[in-house]
Order: sequence, then structure tokens, then C-alpha cells
Amino acid sequence: MENFSIGVREVELLALGAAFLGTGGGGDPLVGKLMLRRYMEGKGSIEIVDGSSGKDEFVLGSAMMGAPIVMIEKVPGGGEAVKALKVYSQIAGRKVDFITPLEIGGINSIIPLIVSIQTGIPVLDGDGMGRAFPELQMTTFYADGIPVSPVVVFDERGNVSVVQGVDGYWSEKIARVITVRYGGSAYIALHGMELSEYSRSAVLGSLSTAIQVGERLASKNIDSLRDLLHCVHLFKGKVIEVYRRVERGFSKGYVVLEGADQWKGKTMRVDFQNEFLIAKEGDKIVATVPDLISFVDAYTLTPVTTDRVRYGQRLVVLGTPSHPKLRSTEMLKYVSPRAFGYDVNFTPLGAS
Amino acid sequence: MENFSIGVREVELLALGAAFLGTGGGGDPLVGKLMLRRYMEGKGSIEIVDGSSGKDEFVLGSAMMGAPIVMIEKVPGGGEAVKALKVYSQIAGRKVDFITPLEIGGINSIIPLIVSIQTGIPVLDGDGMGRAFPELQMTTFYADGIPVSPVVVFDERGNVSVVQGVDGYWSEKIARVITVRYGGSAYIALHGMELSEYSRSAVLGSLSTAIQVGERLASKNIDSLRDLLHCVHLFKGKVIEVYRRVERGFSKGYVVLEGADQWKGKTMRVDFQNEFLIAKEGDKIVATVPDLISFVDAYTLTPVTTDRVRYGQRLVVLGTPSHPKLRSTEMLKYVSPRAFGYDVNFTPLGAS
Repeated sequence: MENFSIGVREVELLALGAAFLGTGGGGDPLVGKLMLRRYMEGKGSIEIVDGSSGKDEFVLGSAMMGAPIVMIEKVPGGGEAVKALKVYSQIAGRKVDFITPLEIGGINSIIPLIVSIQTGIPVLDGDGMGRAFPELQMTTFYADGIPVSPVVVFDERGNVSVVQGVDGYWSEKIARVITVRYGGSAYIALHGMELSEYSRSAVLGSLSTAIQVGERLASKNIDSLRDLLHCVHLFKGKVIEVYRRVERGFSKGYVVLEGADQWKGKTMRVDFQNEFLIAKEGDKIVATVPDLISFVDAYTLTPVTTDRVRYGQRLVVLGTPSHPKLRSTEMLKYVSPRAFGYDVNFTPLGAS
Repeated sequence: MENFSIGVREVELLALGAAFLGTGGGGDPLVGKLMLRRYMEGKGSIEIVDGSSGKDEFVLGSAMMGAPIVMIEKVPGGGEAVKALKVYSQIAGRKVDFITPLEIGGINSIIPLIVSIQTGIPVLDGDGMGRAFPELQMTTFYADGIPVSPVVVFDERGNVSVVQGVDGYWSEKIARVITVRYGGSAYIALHGMELSEYSRSAVLGSLSTAIQVGERLASKNIDSLRDLLHCVHLFKGKVIEVYRRVERGFSKGYVVLEGADQWKGKTMRVDFQNEFLIAKEGDKIVATVPDLISFVDAYTLTPVTTDRVRYGQRLVVLGTPSHPKLRSTEMLKYVSPRAFGYDVNFTPLGAS
């Protein structure tokens, strides 16, 4: 891997690819793209840096927290993410050398780029999930023993809270209620670490991958997408039911599809908590977290987030094997179906 | 006023008096007393310092947050309050010279004493309410422009959150949801200020007053209590209805009494949010915040908190005119009946 710069075109592809890898969550990519465009005007390109080696540099995660559907209604400002980073830097007494996304998904792939434009701090080509997950402790960083805390939780009014949980679950729970109290979304800075820790723990190259996924989706070439990600065609059909509620700071619910083509006469149900978690064809589970379940429009191949799913849409459901780091015993404690309350083991896509 | 030391006996009187001045809230005094006894064993006395003059010394508030009924179920440890103070001191980069109670009421008059025993830091003879109120922005300190934030919110597991709200209301709202998430109670350190600010803003002498109130209650001398506080006999009767729920971190509800003696044939309803807020005889409002409404057992004169009120108890309801600082235009913004959602103006006791 090597360093590279990205401009408006790559950012658009990144937003598209991240919406796919975000498996329905991570916030609407359109919102992030609009934010970034505003900040990029006349500012040139953003430096993306290989994170596979390094030593004394300090890395910080930057993201939004909250139910994506709320983030859409309160279009984010961007300046708040920089303020959150500055508060973190001050508390830690460390200069931030690199910013990392925590997840690949709509808004949360874009927020680090916006911070980069405003601060000049480069972004690392990697993240802690290789996809999107709904909770803070669901990262390779945390599975590798790197603490989530302190978490700086900032809102657009200027409220700042700093959370030092006894573990990742508590950091998540406390930061979540603060986010809900703020009105449903917050800017967070967290997971400060040495670059050497990052190199060992991150899902490396995930920003580059997202851009490549975006290219293939934009060119409507599903075969080349399959070659890149080894994804599986799980279902094709029409949305006949959507149940969605915002509960304790998450979008939760399920989608039911009625089959078309080779799935005619069959139905698929997909549950979500911000992200798609588990896909069932009839009574048979065909894909679960941490593998990626993505919805794309059957005609345009545009990824469809959990918040944008509507009755009557024609969709293709694709399953993508997760990064090997997500399938480790330690990581599965945090991201297997059981971590989301399902009494089901993880069966890797492609294993049966 | 002058400095003095208190021992176990004075602490018991303080707990009793604070329960009266706590107007039903502030936590069960028995719990605080038991905690303090444990810490006082063999440790001698606690130094109480006149806070009416001073300059460069740094004052910090120490308290518990949460619904008192939860504090009773999770008997507090005490060491956590010291840890909250230490985190505050570190963040502020200031040595804490004096501890102040924020309110006079069951647990929250005792917590500063427990911190004092463990740290050797003396306690100031004063507070920010001269009684108890349920929310953080309801202090003379805040009315006088001294910021509530940062608020260190600590729990018995070791979770620490630091809240910097844009104003006192936001500090309250954020610290409250964190407290609820912790399980309903938390140890807080807040309202750091210079002693010169304290001297100007605090309700001075309120710890001494609480001890005097305790002496008069212990000797069952209601006339001498009336001489000290100028309190009014509002009602006497039997509890015929109690409605109580824990809602968003508060104990809320009302009590209905059926009259005895000169109130025979009449009823009184008293609403509360942790503390008693408004007392009505029939349709007529006879006392409201910020004046103090206190319940005492008709036979023993023991104060009865909102959590301890039970069907069938025989009670006397006393109204005590609030300290002049609580009746200022600025302070009434935060503690008048309107601040609690009642469409009623404050009519001072003794004014009609």
C-alpha cells in the first residue's frame, strides 16, 4: 500500500462504496457527501496515508454517534467534529498525527475527511470494522485490547461530555445516553492510540477498498464487484414490509422482501440495528453479522440504507464475507449474532 | 460566625435537621448517618469553617445525584465521592481548599463530611440552596453567574464522565441521563469557585442552622423550632393517598392528607419532585417553593422524606419561609413554582 490523494470524484465513489460496505448503516452517504463538498470547495485534495507501519505517531478516531435517521434530519455541521478532536488532544496532552475512521459507512467514512480538510491532519487508510457496526465496542481495536475511552461527546450547541467507561460496553452505554439527550446525534472523538497499535489492529486498506467498490457500483458492473469482494447473491425481490423505530438511540427493525426471478414464491426477512444483522430466507438463516448484508437497487445498483428502505422498492440483497479479523474468536465476542441477542452461531458465508 | 468542630453527636443532629430543611428530599438521612458513622470511627471530629470571607482559596461542591429512593437501595460507599473530587481537582489543575454542600438535605449534607474525613479538607458552613432542590441549576451559585460545569459524574463501578454543558440546564440534563444510565445514583463534584465568590453567593451558616434544627427536633420542642425558623403550622392529618414514581431520574408524585384537630373535614395535597413543591388545602395554595414544606411525624417530630411517606401516617406539615437569597428575582427564575411547571406565582409565606 502507499499514500495517495483524493479529490471530489474519489470522495463520491468512496461515499457510494461506503454505503455498500456500511451494510445499511453508518448514516446517509448523501449527507456526508454534501458536507464534504462544501468543505472541499477550493481546498484541493485530501491526503490518505498507509497505516501499515509506524511508531510514535498518535492516531485518533473521529465519527458521529446516533441513529442515522436522526443524522439525516439534523444535517451535520462538521466544525463540531474538529472541536471534539481538539478537546481530546487537550485532555490527552497529545498532538494528533493521523485521523482514522472507526467504521466504513455513509457519514462515518466522510467525517474524518472533513476533519482532515479543516485541520490538515492526514487520514489513515483503514478502520476498526471494515464495515459499519452500531456500537463503540465492536471494533478490532477494542478486541485487541485498545481502550475505547476517553470518548469526547460533542453537540452542535457546544455541550461537551467526556466519558471514561470501565470497559467498552460502559463507554458505549454512557456515550449513547448522552447522544440521545443531545437530541439523537453527536460528534465523537475516541480510541486514541499509537500508530504501532493501529498497524497491528486496524482493518487496513478499507478506504481504498471502499473507493474501488464505489467505482464498480458506479459503472453498474456487478460481476466486477463480485470479483473484488467475493460477494454472494442472496436474494432479489420487492419490499413488502418495513418495520422501523428509533429505540434508545438506534434505528431498529426489519424488512421483508417478496422474491422475484429465481426467488419467486419465496420471502426474505432482514433484521437491523442501524446495520443489517441477519438475513433469513423463509426459516433458513442465509447470512449473519459479522458478514456484510447489503441492499442495492435492482436497477441502479445504488446501495439502500436501512433508513431509505421503502415499500415497493425492487432490491438485490448481497452477502459479502467479512474481513478475517472480524471472524477471530475475540472479535466474535463483540460482533457475532449472539452479541446482538440472537440465539444463533455465526456461520461464515461460503463455508456451507 | 466562627469555625468549629463536630463529632458524632452533632452529626446526628445535623442529619435530623437536614432532613427537615431537605423538605422531603436530599436522600434518607439515616443512610448518610450510617455511612458517616462508619467513616468517623476513631477519626475524631470534622472541621466546619466559616465561609463568609476569603480570597484565593478554591471551593468545590460534593454531592450525590439521583432519585433518593435509589440511593437508599444502593447504600453509598463514600470513597467514590473522594474520587470524584480528585478527578475534578486534576482537570481544573487546582488544589481543593474547602468542600461545600450544594444543598441541605439528608445524604447531601453528609457526603461533604465523609469527603472531609477521608481527605482532611474542611467543610464550609453554607450551601447553595439553604434547603434541598432537585436540579443542579437551582442554586444561589448559579443564579449569581457561577458556572455549574464541569460536573464530574462518578459511579461505584469506576465509570467517570465529565460534563461541560453550555449552561446549567444542559449540565443538569446531561448529568441526569448519565446518572440514570449508571443505575439511578452517582457521586458528583461540581461548582468549583473561589472562596470570594462563595462568600458573596452562598447561603451562609446553613450547616449550623441544620444542627440547631436537629437539636430542637430531638428535644421535641416545636415552639423553639418555630422561634428559630419562623415556621408556620400548615396542616395536621393522616396520609390517605400516596402516588410516587421514579421518572427520568427523579422521584415524582403527591401525597394527600385528611385533616385532624382544627383541620378536621379538610384535605391537603402536597406535590413533590424529590422535594415537596406545592401544598394545597382544598383548592387553596398555602405554600410553594422556594419556601420550605416539611413533614414531621405528629408524635415524634421526626422529619418524613417523600420516600418514607406511607398510608396511615399521622403527620404535621410545616411551612418555613425561605432564605431571602432564594426569593431574589434572579433565583426565582430557577426555583419558583413556574420553574417546576406550575402556572402559579410564588407567594411568600407570611406575606398574606
